[in-house]
Amino acid sequence: MYEVQQLRINYKTLEEFKQFKQYGLQELSMLEELNAQISENEIHSPFYGIYIGNRLVARMSLYRQSKKHDHYFKPHQPYLEVWKLEVLQEFQSKGLGTRLIEYAKSFNLPIKTNPRVHSNQFWTKMGFVPAAYDLERDLGENPMLWCPEGVSTSK
Amino acid sequence: MYEVQQLRINYKTLEEFKQFKQYGLQELSMLEELNAQISENEIHSPFYGIYIGNRLVARMSLYRQSKKHDHYFKPHQPYLEVWKLEVLQEFQSKGLGTRLIEYAKSFNLPIKTNPRVHSNQFWTKMGFVPAAYDLERDLGENPMLWCPEGVSTSK
Repeated sequence: MYEVQQLRINYKTLEEFKQFKQYGLQELSMLEELNAQISENEIHSPFYGIYIGNRLVARMSLYRQSKKHDHYFKPHQPYLEVWKLEVLQEFQSKGLGTRLIEYAKSFNLPIKTNPRVHSNQFWTKMGFVPAAYDLERDLGENPMLWCPEGVSTSK
Repeated sequence: MYEVQQLRINYKTLEEFKQFKQYGLQELSMLEELNAQISENEIHSPFYGIYIGNRLVARMSLYRQSKKHDHYFKPHQPYLEVWKLEVLQEFQSKGLGTRLIEYAKSFNLPIKTNPRVHSNQFWTKMGFVPAAYDLERDLGENPMLWCPEGVSTSK
């Protein structure tokens, strides 16, 4: 069973992040923080990942939103936002993505994600359902939602 | 000069939307509204596009956010959110994307977008700058911002 762990943000991790397609402003901002002399491993990071040997091969970001920001679930409550779920190509089809999402589900909070194009099949398999599109809330997003027992989507 | 027009949402437009890569829940939701007997051309749509002959070859969504939702600009003010900017492949490199963004700028409001991966060069050319990444606000986004005269980014 692959172990999911919260990632320590240091130069090694940030270098490994460059292997992932969804590298962006978030990673650049952490690099700036490190360069500004914040000690390694002390940056607050929402990243979780799976190592095989010494190598980071899968990752996701996981962030707890407050009840105040919930426009997706009924009753309104805190929920988890997942983004940048990605498995390096040569490590795909081993269940690593599934393992990360099972980890996210283990908090027993509802989950919202905005999947990349062409990944809907994966999210459906994981029990996520498309949100009822709301222009003002969703704009360019295609939200997919997962509800633990006793929770439903807000419309 | 290519003319930008707000799109009428009817079965022809929704069929043309399928040619664009960023087809998603937003379009499916408009199709449902049409199927539910709302008259053609009466759906409120944030889509603008360019026709060449009778064919829709470029489009974007453009939505005015209220001052209350502004966490990007100084002073806080209403701004435009742009998404799903896309030019059909065979019509690229003709300046159609530029024309659409010039149209968006003509409202003289600040603009925020969350560009697709690998499109940063275009946005930079159009005068957009990366936002200072803020975890709670931006999550998985890589916001790029454009400011009219007298406006700056909020940090």
